[in-house]
Amino acid sequence: MAYGYFASMRTRPGRRAEVVAILLEGVDGLRAAGCSLYAVGASETDPDLILVSEIWESKGHHDRSLHLPETKAAIARAMPLLTGEFTNQEMTVLGGLGV
Amino acid sequence: MAYGYFASMRTRPGRRAEVVAILLEGVDGLRAAGCSLYAVGASETDPDLILVSEIWESKGHHDRSLHLPETKAAIARAMPLLTGEFTNQEMTVLGGLGV
Repeated sequence: MAYGYFASMRTRPGRRAEVVAILLEGVDGLRAAGCSLYAVGASETDPDLILVSEIWESKGHHDRSLHLPETKAAIARAMPLLTGEFTNQEMTVLGGLGV
Repeated sequence: MAYGYFASMRTRPGRRAEVVAILLEGVDGLRAAGCSLYAVGASETDPDLILVSEIWESKGHHDRSLHLPETKAAIARAMPLLTGEFTNQEMTVLGGLGV
């Protein structure tokens, strides 16, 4: 059953574009890691909020991706630009379009 | 720029499967309405929580879809099965995989 992950993260004031760029750098390797959707977006109403929606083959695929060297390097670079305010939600995908 | 929408809704105890079935009934018409992703999922940790992740051509496409007769009929049928606890987040998609 596919696994969905949705996260929000707050950047330090004015640093959103930098964090978005970091999040988009590693896109090439995602499909091979079992990811079918990785959408990085910006809130229209909150200038320092980033939203990320992901769909993976399984929770295990997502969890393992967090241990890839390129992922860990990207997280380390983004961390100083974030406030630490972070939310996430996980789901088992039951159906729909494009899943 | 693509538009992303993420929602959570709480069902009355034990009614989640019924609501999921209602949400999945109208999938066929979504692509023609400008939807590229519509993932309906269940929280693994909360037995009465449904999560929905969507990507549309634009916010206008999503907004207009809410006025389609079949959408309004589905909402009317689901409403009595929901508690009213509802959250949603909107984003402008900036990039990624599968978007």
